Amino acid sequence: MARADEGLAFLLRYENVARYEDGVVAILDRRVYPGTTEFVRCADYVEVGQAISNMVTQSGGPWLAAAWGMVSAARDVRGLAEGAAGEKLEDAAQTLIHARPTRVRHMEAHLTRILRVAREALSEGQDVEAITATYVREILEQRYERARQIAGFTVAVLPDECTILTQCFAETLIGYTLLVAQESKKKISLICPETRPYLQGARLTASVAHDMGVPVTVVTDNMPAHVMSKGKADVFISAADVITLDGHVVNKIGTFQIALAAHYHAIPYYVQGDPTVGNPTISTVTIEERDPEETLHAMGIRTAKEGVSGYYPAFDVTPPHLVSGVVTTKGVLSPYDLHNHFGSQ
Amino acid sequence: MARADEGLAFLLRYENVARYEDGVVAILDRRVYPGTTEFVRCADYVEVGQAISNMVTQSGGPWLAAAWGMVSAARDVRGLAEGAAGEKLEDAAQTLIHARPTRVRHMEAHLTRILRVAREALSEGQDVEAITATYVREILEQRYERARQIAGFTVAVLPDECTILTQCFAETLIGYTLLVAQESKKKISLICPETRPYLQGARLTASVAHDMGVPVTVVTDNMPAHVMSKGKADVFISAADVITLDGHVVNKIGTFQIALAAHYHAIPYYVQGDPTVGNPTISTVTIEERDPEETLHAMGIRTAKEGVSGYYPAFDVTPPHLVSGVVTTKGVLSPYDLHNHFGSQ
Repeated sequence: MARADEGLAFLLRYENVARYEDGVVAILDRRVYPGTTEFVRCADYVEVGQAISNMVTQSGGPWLAAAWGMVSAARDVRGLAEGAAGEKLEDAAQTLIHARPTRVRHMEAHLTRILRVAREALSEGQDVEAITATYVREILEQRYERARQIAGFTVAVLPDECTILTQCFAETLIGYTLLVAQESKKKISLICPETRPYLQGARLTASVAHDMGVPVTVVTDNMPAHVMSKGKADVFISAADVITLDGHVVNKIGTFQIALAAHYHAIPYYVQGDPTVGNPTISTVTIEERDPEETLHAMGIRTAKEGVSGYYPAFDVTPPHLVSGVVTTKGVLSPYDLHNHFGSQ
Repeated sequence: MARADEGLAFLLRYENVARYEDGVVAILDRRVYPGTTEFVRCADYVEVGQAISNMVTQSGGPWLAAAWGMVSAARDVRGLAEGAAGEKLEDAAQTLIHARPTRVRHMEAHLTRILRVAREALSEGQDVEAITATYVREILEQRYERARQIAGFTVAVLPDECTILTQCFAETLIGYTLLVAQESKKKISLICPETRPYLQGARLTASVAHDMGVPVTVVTDNMPAHVMSKGKADVFISAADVITLDGHVVNKIGTFQIALAAHYHAIPYYVQGDPTVGNPTISTVTIEERDPEETLHAMGIRTAKEGVSGYYPAFDVTPPHLVSGVVTTKGVLSPYDLHNHFGSQ
């Protein structure tokens, strides 16, 4: 069977997101890509947690890095008594789940499954590392397949020729959207807001599009409304860090104001992803605030005078009335109808 | 009489914006301030035009630099026959008027006055340089007085305690607003979007506020709507590069989407300035597009992969229905009422 990431750009092929070998998790440092292609090597799950917390990787990256972090923990329990081994695995899961606060429920659902498999292997005296690693590869394939499914529903609602305005880096969701569009002979181009302070739009999304031969233009984050007013964007599409069952979209800071501008200009806004398990309402989500120093620097260089303060909310919330459709694995849904399709989670 | 810029921050005192001495115009390089405090020395009006075009200075800076450029030209006509001297002065005015396309009408009105004074001195055989320089100082004082007047009307509509969200660098208008607020014992703080790609918000507005002892927080350009949704901003205030008599605001790219977000959150948006002479309708304004490479770099470092395109509209247009009031030298006016107060221009 073909690997699920076949045909995708460098940045999206899973060995380039995060790799596992002999206990070490190597994570592509997206803070410096594409200027530099460099992997941060983590010797154990604690270092993986720190790397996630330091935003070595983001979007879907932490999901994969944390999964390999669990495999690394599974290796480290070799030779321990079953009780101590179980505790270590539990600690690994908790450490990785809480590396960043906003997607805690999502990570919990993901790592709890891996933890269960590891504990079963442990109690049955099997090779915990090998069994956990096989399971991670399995769910990774499934995840990529789901992304392809969502991409299919997305491309189906796009006109034959259109320019998509993006935000931040939607990982395999944008990757497969471009791939499926190419397979369907739809002519797509992208406009990517650069997405300060980490510039994932300029650095990651634009790189993926460029690598896949899709025409791509980078603008600064103060340009989307003007771009729309000039008729240069036909649709706004983003992924989400959290989609609540009540139709709110929690995504990279800036998504909300692009959605506002799209609504004003009667441009549809589609968010890609299934509602997040464990987030029935927006009140269950904590918006992470990161180090304010980040907003006082660009590309590592201080922009503002010493003594000036910063403020860095990592995400914002777009309310359902600004969302034209949630593109899920079950098709394009109204943000007000999610609970009827995913309510039993 | 006290100098008009007394009490203002370093960046706003006119000898720190642009200086004139013995034919040379020295312009503070705002592209690198506050990291470096450095003046670009222009030997003649051609070099001043280039400096303006290269954005060594912006906002009110080009106005002052161009005025001194005219004085430099007035020095250079010494010893020329009256006809040739007149032609040189005319060429200086045209060069400086057209250094950037969006504010052409504004610069034309400004430099035509200076040109007239210079030509009169020339035809009367007077010291053209000395008379032109005196005239420039006079209109400069008047300009600063007008900024103080507008600041007075602005502060009068603000609550006793409030946080102003700004955009880009509104020069003496924001400077006097802070000064008059301090004199009126109103407790003001600022939130400044950094204003990519040149970061004038982070580098210039935040510096002025900090130098004047006003609490100031810098955010990235994708944060204003979220800041408003959190109740952190009470009012949005910007200057404008052009205010048309039909109530449209042409200002630094990003103003439009902040105005949209303000409108959504029922936060007033005030624009400071008199309508621009010679711009009765928005159709008379050309929106400058600058070098797209700028959106592919931050602080001089390439952000996107080679082969990725950029797009850099320097300004955007905010329509009158998103403007709560135009704070002019005649008071706070409705954007729909400007022609009744300034129609005879």
